Amino acid sequence: MKPHFITLEGSEACGKSTQIERLKARLEARGDTVLLTREPGGTALGETLRHLLKHAPEGRGMCAEAELLLFTASRAQLCREVIAPTLAAGGWVISDRFGDSTTVYQGVARKLAPADVASINNFAMGAIRPSLTIVLDLDPEEAKRRLLRRPRPVGQATDRMEDQPADFFDRVREGYRALAQAEPDRVKLISAAGKLNEVEETIWSLVSHAFSL
Amino acid sequence: MKPHFITLEGSEACGKSTQIERLKARLEARGDTVLLTREPGGTALGETLRHLLKHAPEGRGMCAEAELLLFTASRAQLCREVIAPTLAAGGWVISDRFGDSTTVYQGVARKLAPADVASINNFAMGAIRPSLTIVLDLDPEEAKRRLLRRPRPVGQATDRMEDQPADFFDRVREGYRALAQAEPDRVKLISAAGKLNEVEETIWSLVSHAFSL
Repeated sequence: MKPHFITLEGSEACGKSTQIERLKARLEARGDTVLLTREPGGTALGETLRHLLKHAPEGRGMCAEAELLLFTASRAQLCREVIAPTLAAGGWVISDRFGDSTTVYQGVARKLAPADVASINNFAMGAIRPSLTIVLDLDPEEAKRRLLRRPRPVGQATDRMEDQPADFFDRVREGYRALAQAEPDRVKLISAAGKLNEVEETIWSLVSHAFSL
Repeated sequence: MKPHFITLEGSEACGKSTQIERLKARLEARGDTVLLTREPGGTALGETLRHLLKHAPEGRGMCAEAELLLFTASRAQLCREVIAPTLAAGGWVISDRFGDSTTVYQGVARKLAPADVASINNFAMGAIRPSLTIVLDLDPEEAKRRLLRRPRPVGQATDRMEDQPADFFDRVREGYRALAQAEPDRVKLISAAGKLNEVEETIWSLVSHAFSL
């Protein structure tokens, strides 16, 4: 049986969080146990790294190499502390971002050497791989509009990853598209521009099919 | 001309900090500019990672893979933000620990695969390598005695790296000895058991010789 591990990927504001909650509810309605997690984060160590990567002032000037190593440190801990034991106990794991984010953001968009990114990512993931990855594809200009409409705590502006120039997000979108072409069995790219209920149905049909539910 | 980059390595409490201060004073007496730094740390990002690696409660349960990635993240930032520009401007850099600590602590002592450790370490260091590395060799039992005598802030016990079992420090010592045998031109292992002035003289003769001072 393939591991019950699903990841959602895509640009900022593509609607991952909403769809993950809906997918969780559908699986739980079947009587299944579902753990939601996110990257960076998902463990005490990972949530500290998330803050460092997104908001902390001392993270503002970090080099691309340190960024890659911090994202993968969070992943290494998440795989061993949370994902592996949950899968072993028969539960589902749905993660908001996983290894493909590193391939696309630090590899394609930051232009670090793909071989370095792949080997460090593999080291971090160990034996853990998603059985199904759904990419929510969204036009970068629409993503920017959604991002600016998003409610935020008072005094908190966009974060360090959101603050990248427009061509960075163009490369992110291209990176995900290339990934879906390279691994069509695992990586399914769908439009995030439709209505929430339509996107939810599309995701459910992909999940049902992939796991023969 | 070889880069004026010297690293000091060795177990906890081997006397690195004292000897680094003395070496700095000797070089400055010649009219040279000397930057001292340390690992993990040496940058704003790195000092946050140092706290996470040594003291923060959320670091206590980190896996060996995450530990390796956090040490190398600190190193990646230090190389690009501090060491490379200082060397390019003609200054000396002396670092309390550098890449060899990762080879020995995460590779030999934690038993992560040497090929993984080497490739991630090389990725972090980029083009930066020390011209001379001095290992202060000390019997682990003597190191433990010195560590327990060391003054500490009220309420602060030994840190996470110091809290390892005895066989961990035996492997650290063996790791450094193997390194000195494998790279005898760069890595010089000397006894840290002697008087401070004697160790200082030995280090100065190694530095004078390596850089033809």
